[in-house]
Amino acid sequence: MVPRHRALLGLRRWQLASPSLQIRSLSQCTTRLQQAQAREQVQEATTSASSEPSQPHDQHGTKGPAAPAKAIKYTSESYPSLKRDPKFAELTQDHVKYFKDLLGSGSAVIDGLSEEAGEDIEPFNSDWMRKYRGHAKLVVKPGSTEEVSKILKYCNDKMLAVVPQGGNTGLVGGSVPVFDEIVINLSRMNKIRSFDEVSGILVADAGVILETADSFLAEKKHIFPLDLGAKGSCQIGGNVATNAGGLRLLRYGSMHGNILGIEAVLPDGTIMDDLSKLRKNNTGYDIKQLFIGGEGTIGIITAISILCPQRSPAMNVAYFGLDSFEKVQQAFREAKNQLSEILSAFELMDGRSQKLYNRATGKKLPLEGEHPFYCLIETSGSNTDHDSEKLEAFLEHVMGEEIVADGVVAQDQTQMQSLWKCREGVPECLGHWGGVYKYDLSLPIAEMYDLVNETRDKLTRAGLVGDGEEHAVVDVVGYGHMGDANLHLNIATRRFDTAVEKELEPFVYEWVASRNGSISAEHGLGIAKKAFIGYSRSETMVKLMQQIKGLYDPNGIMNPYKYI
Amino acid sequence: MVPRHRALLGLRRWQLASPSLQIRSLSQCTTRLQQAQAREQVQEATTSASSEPSQPHDQHGTKGPAAPAKAIKYTSESYPSLKRDPKFAELTQDHVKYFKDLLGSGSAVIDGLSEEAGEDIEPFNSDWMRKYRGHAKLVVKPGSTEEVSKILKYCNDKMLAVVPQGGNTGLVGGSVPVFDEIVINLSRMNKIRSFDEVSGILVADAGVILETADSFLAEKKHIFPLDLGAKGSCQIGGNVATNAGGLRLLRYGSMHGNILGIEAVLPDGTIMDDLSKLRKNNTGYDIKQLFIGGEGTIGIITAISILCPQRSPAMNVAYFGLDSFEKVQQAFREAKNQLSEILSAFELMDGRSQKLYNRATGKKLPLEGEHPFYCLIETSGSNTDHDSEKLEAFLEHVMGEEIVADGVVAQDQTQMQSLWKCREGVPECLGHWGGVYKYDLSLPIAEMYDLVNETRDKLTRAGLVGDGEEHAVVDVVGYGHMGDANLHLNIATRRFDTAVEKELEPFVYEWVASRNGSISAEHGLGIAKKAFIGYSRSETMVKLMQQIKGLYDPNGIMNPYKYI
Repeated sequence: MVPRHRALLGLRRWQLASPSLQIRSLSQCTTRLQQAQAREQVQEATTSASSEPSQPHDQHGTKGPAAPAKAIKYTSESYPSLKRDPKFAELTQDHVKYFKDLLGSGSAVIDGLSEEAGEDIEPFNSDWMRKYRGHAKLVVKPGSTEEVSKILKYCNDKMLAVVPQGGNTGLVGGSVPVFDEIVINLSRMNKIRSFDEVSGILVADAGVILETADSFLAEKKHIFPLDLGAKGSCQIGGNVATNAGGLRLLRYGSMHGNILGIEAVLPDGTIMDDLSKLRKNNTGYDIKQLFIGGEGTIGIITAISILCPQRSPAMNVAYFGLDSFEKVQQAFREAKNQLSEILSAFELMDGRSQKLYNRATGKKLPLEGEHPFYCLIETSGSNTDHDSEKLEAFLEHVMGEEIVADGVVAQDQTQMQSLWKCREGVPECLGHWGGVYKYDLSLPIAEMYDLVNETRDKLTRAGLVGDGEEHAVVDVVGYGHMGDANLHLNIATRRFDTAVEKELEPFVYEWVASRNGSISAEHGLGIAKKAFIGYSRSETMVKLMQQIKGLYDPNGIMNPYKYI
Repeated sequence: MVPRHRALLGLRRWQLASPSLQIRSLSQCTTRLQQAQAREQVQEATTSASSEPSQPHDQHGTKGPAAPAKAIKYTSESYPSLKRDPKFAELTQDHVKYFKDLLGSGSAVIDGLSEEAGEDIEPFNSDWMRKYRGHAKLVVKPGSTEEVSKILKYCNDKMLAVVPQGGNTGLVGGSVPVFDEIVINLSRMNKIRSFDEVSGILVADAGVILETADSFLAEKKHIFPLDLGAKGSCQIGGNVATNAGGLRLLRYGSMHGNILGIEAVLPDGTIMDDLSKLRKNNTGYDIKQLFIGGEGTIGIITAISILCPQRSPAMNVAYFGLDSFEKVQQAFREAKNQLSEILSAFELMDGRSQKLYNRATGKKLPLEGEHPFYCLIETSGSNTDHDSEKLEAFLEHVMGEEIVADGVVAQDQTQMQSLWKCREGVPECLGHWGGVYKYDLSLPIAEMYDLVNETRDKLTRAGLVGDGEEHAVVDVVGYGHMGDANLHLNIATRRFDTAVEKELEPFVYEWVASRNGSISAEHGLGIAKKAFIGYSRSETMVKLMQQIKGLYDPNGIMNPYKYI
């Protein structure tokens, strides 16, 4: 009997059983495979230009030299209908003095009122996508929950509007000011408070960088139950405030299940001390849940308590081609059935997205033939042999039943990254020809891909899609987190064009609404989606949300002009 | 090489590697092993008598003939300090007419005002533990969300207090009236609305019985991500309203993560249409979370949408003895490490609880020697061979390292049930000598068992524990869901005795509070724990909760006299 040690052997045995399977040297199609830095969420934004006001010249990602901040258009100009609410006080020297007395006059206060703090203050005024830019004259960086409390109470009393800010890696403009809101930046609150190795419960300040938390946990053989591309910059408080989804949701579930406790400060300075380290606690309304995905509009999260799973020592990645979306669904069902507890990702890429990835990057694709759909499967578990055997059995089944047309299994870490790159590289490569109209949608799985086809047909009928320069649209593609029914509908363009926009909207939102989908699966509302909430939520729900906002923030000082 | 097919073989190999291991014929110690019907939550209540007013003569379980309902003491008598709130209207013939016109005069309205509905109305007035009993004169059973809406709006307008009622299997008196509140029983809303086999998302009326939902899902190879003893009677709406924990929480997480949508009716008749079938939806505050564990105090859940996992075909159960609580913790850490994704239960029973189980039932225990602690481990996964191999490796390790002193692995379904019985039979058997003082607590795992020792020491010092009839207390035992850090502290008594109560309270609550534990891990507050919330929640949190209550239910008609 052949010993089974690694996924490699799984692949070999699969080959014997399934002669149609292409086994290729993945190294042919991968050059300079570094650690996959730019994961979905970040890359998406890098090339992002939805129907919201866009910065086409800033579409070339974070890796190139940053344009001077001053070149970013003010949000107040991009959204001319937005007016500064006159109920808010204007910042004065007296206000600044209060904050300096409280926090010291060092780096904890960036004062753009008294001094020319231009270059220092700009990174806090604009988002890293370079799409949104505010006019803040003051940034404060509290070092403790008590300081956050004093700051908010003061602002509330003085009617000074504020913007809570974590790593400022959001995608909907939620973490930067629109006008002169004071930025409350959490980066100085960056301590891990405790970790219990038996229960796996981590308690940490909101300003801890996600990657720092995850590295800390790695040493303890645990993982943070959230992973996303911005992990090197984003802060866990911001992750919770935006209910970040990311790559581990299929396996570990959402923040609403994993967050056990939250410490937050309400606008009036009240410290909500709900930092429970208990997995079970049925003593009253679970108010902390409102802060998960509350986008800093009812308070500022200062610390979290979160249940962290064990780290899985065994990992496998497979990539395959399929002939129809029906077969993709079948494969997903089979993966859930057979890989069950070890399935950690099931990602979808349509053939067009893979073709554009190949055209834009010049990188060869893992499979030689062409297929209308591709999927990437990742397993993670506690036993390499078992996982490989399960994956192999699954692959034999889906090949034998002709659910999957062709496939490869990564043989080592480098190949795993190479396969992941075919999925993760898509958002970035789509910006190659100009800009991208992007939608982050939740839809019923069965109908998910219909929207991509219908959108493409609509734009084609309008004569907007084609190979020549005269066509604004290069192609319409779909990819995303199949396991979470989260579709990224992307329209790769040569230029932004109102003719395209007219075809897309309100068509896409109406289509999503008619299927009871979500117009923002994981990115949140911020300023970008505020106007469109009606497509995903009823009037009743919006009213109930406004009631919550009014309850906690009657003066409306928290992150104004955004959310609902 | 020995083929590995079943847990049995795992056990045999374990024996070879670990000569100290006792292998016993489980059939010796199991007679008439029926389907383990009375699971933790139900059994706990069966024998329950906490410090709340108790019914010692009703302590002999649900299996015996039920005492006539009239014999149950009214809650208003057990809690003499509770007074009917005069702001609520008294039920009149006009009110009854409204409901009959709305629902028809058939079984949807049980009218105790016009007729002598005594026997018909009593099951809705008293709980199945026979601890709580109200004076309701009217039960209404709406058949649709619209009817619920009309009922609540009418009651709110007329200031008629109501009690939402599901299967009425709760443990804290939350689902029966205290005075003359109208019972709104959801049992007629019992349709499964939809199930998506690809995503595993079930949408169903609140009144669907948990077991019905789970059986429906079993046919689709899925499970309801909650399991508890009352499954044959409890309703899924009630499960959500009480944030039920149960047996699958370790593996599948809490309702807060699994519930994707809720349809609920607010006191003013507003239908909160948040029945999303989406795994991801970041469009505004997650208000539905307030209804999870809200215990019917801000609205009535009429339907839920829930993510259901795949059903695991492979199951294993092991039972072992350990020499200290430190070793129990080590074993738990190792189980998390090595069994990882297949671990589905890790239950704790102290040696005293097992001894009492043996004394009360006459059933032999699975292991021959005596140990201060015992654990039950369950695995569930997709591949029997893999799971057995993992379990075997784990057992070899914990035996080799002398973490575990002795153990057995079930060889078939009957033995699995027999082992489970040693855990599940504990709550019931503790009532054998008279009554039981019971506490359902969440505590930091490391300190969890200290409370049991300290409580026992305290009662012993007071001369209350002993073998003779003159001692009120038989023994003090601890058991529970180790995996969830959920301890059941139980004091088995020959009789209820104020001397015992004085030793226990506020000692237990203060002890829990000083460790930031929870005085109600999974049972909720209801009327039983309302007074004690201050031990688990700060004044600030209680005020914030009262604010929520006031926001949704300004007239206070929803489930009054309870919760916060």
